[in-house]
Amino acid sequence: MPSEHRLLRRVQFYETDLAGIVHFSWFFRYMEEAEHALWREAGLSIARAGEETGFPRLAAHCEFHAPLRFEDEFEVWIRVAAITRRTMRYSFLMTRGETRIASGSTTIACVSKRQGEPMKAIDIPAGIAGRFAVAPGAEEPAAGKPAT
Amino acid sequence: MPSEHRLLRRVQFYETDLAGIVHFSWFFRYMEEAEHALWREAGLSIARAGEETGFPRLAAHCEFHAPLRFEDEFEVWIRVAAITRRTMRYSFLMTRGETRIASGSTTIACVSKRQGEPMKAIDIPAGIAGRFAVAPGAEEPAAGKPAT
Amino acid sequence: MPSEHRLLRRVQFYETDLAGIVHFSWFFRYMEEAEHALWREAGLSIARAGEETGFPRLAAHCEFHAPLRFEDEFEVWIRVAAITRRTMRYSFLMTRGETRIASGSTTIACVSKRQGEPMKAIDIPAGIAGRFAVAPGAEEPAAGKPAT
Amino acid sequence: MPSEHRLLRRVQFYETDLAGIVHFSWFFRYMEEAEHALWREAGLSIARAGEETGFPRLAAHCEFHAPLRFEDEFEVWIRVAAITRRTMRYSFLMTRGETRIASGSTTIACVSKRQGEPMKAIDIPAGIAGRFAVAPGAEEPAAGKPAT
Repeated sequence: MPSEHRLLRRVQFYETDLAGIVHFSWFFRYMEEAEHALWREAGLSIARAGEETGFPRLAAHCEFHAPLRFEDEFEVWIRVAAITRRTMRYSFLMTRGETRIASGSTTIACVSKRQGEPMKAIDIPAGIAGRFAVAPGAEEPAAGKPAT
Repeated sequence: MPSEHRLLRRVQFYETDLAGIVHFSWFFRYMEEAEHALWREAGLSIARAGEETGFPRLAAHCEFHAPLRFEDEFEVWIRVAAITRRTMRYSFLMTRGETRIASGSTTIACVSKRQGEPMKAIDIPAGIAGRFAVAPGAEEPAAGKPAT
Repeated sequence: MPSEHRLLRRVQFYETDLAGIVHFSWFFRYMEEAEHALWREAGLSIARAGEETGFPRLAAHCEFHAPLRFEDEFEVWIRVAAITRRTMRYSFLMTRGETRIASGSTTIACVSKRQGEPMKAIDIPAGIAGRFAVAPGAEEPAAGKPAT
Repeated sequence: MPSEHRLLRRVQFYETDLAGIVHFSWFFRYMEEAEHALWREAGLSIARAGEETGFPRLAAHCEFHAPLRFEDEFEVWIRVAAITRRTMRYSFLMTRGETRIASGSTTIACVSKRQGEPMKAIDIPAGIAGRFAVAPGAEEPAAGKPAT
């Protein structure tokens, strides 16, 4: 029952912009990569072909502390901050060595998506919610200190 | 002295993901498109070749109310929420017809970026800050009602 | 029965990379935008929710003649180069004013995609193929001269 | 003096589109990732802050044989196909297990890029060209058989 995951990643060329640093929209994709790696660690895939359950985002937030540059190696530390009946919330901390790069959070909801019908909020299936544990202290991502 | 801008946009195929809706990371790019259109309306470009002043993001936030799908036409309404000596904050509301799609905010800082030196926060040049006005009520984006 | 389309477009910030120019992968997305605009002009949408027919790419090619930079305005000229029973081929020319920026081509195939089954090549439905005409001379995109 | 590199990669969620497969534009980014990994293996970085030498693409080509889906693990095999005084050409083969996914090629040129001046083609510095070897048989990527 994982409650956190650490993803190691290298900045790719196409993730940079004309300012010479990683474009801020990429940080949200880094968060998602870490989330899906956490799900795999829990023995799950967040998207299975043909499945009628989806997990769209309700909210996403990021604070940018220092820039990332081409070929930088960095870590995305995701923690499960909260699990409710119909939502999960993660907190994130990205670091490059000792440098805090960014911190943030995302909240996902569980929905039923049948072709031709609007998405409808449903309970997270027990077989999914039961595979994760809440990480102590994850509610304060900015205060989090990456233990290396 | 513009304080807001309305960007009309159509969803592109490559902005969708396997869930059949626009990937959430794109909403942050839509925000940026509206921001830069606002700057053009103010007679400015946020990035000029050779310039040593940049405007990286300090924070970005988005709440997702309803999905966007391929070829949907939607509006991104950006308003200047606050201008301080070294930062600007925008609030956003995205709508498709009468449907609220997303709301959010971003904060940018003004930095000096000389080759080989770390970025350093500086005051926003008067010739830039003086081109924008704060939009009344923009601090409450979620409550905002798009006047159509 | 359109055989060509001209898309006007402005370079967005997130399309640039650290070299200060548009990343080459974006040219393929520009091509796709023009293609889908052509389909709309033909009264069609290349992707309808629930449809079991898709149009994946078989091949894509691009030659890069001159860079595009942030906020550049440019044109993507798409022409239908060939229609066969199961494929369509487009040629592209991108220009910024008088400057040739890039030229290329893509080939799409028509496939049947039923959930859980592999994609299978099928004939392009008559109601689709019959909506397009082949553009004379489109087979030689590089030689094409944009009539402005 | 490397002449080839094999990059292992997993498909990310944001790389898929509404057709449920990886969007074709991503294959060109996968090629670039493999290229830059090859450069690192040669002890080089294709982009160094402050450098006035760049390597834009002259041409890129890809043929798509089979789709990639979310979380698929695949290999990008890059080989140096040709080195001339001012250009380098790579051939690529992407595979998922025994399945050929895509094959392609890109050609890069060496340019001098001084602020405010147009890019100008120059010779590839000897310290760079001398770090790579041409891979025998790489001119025929489609015929290439991945030795695993």
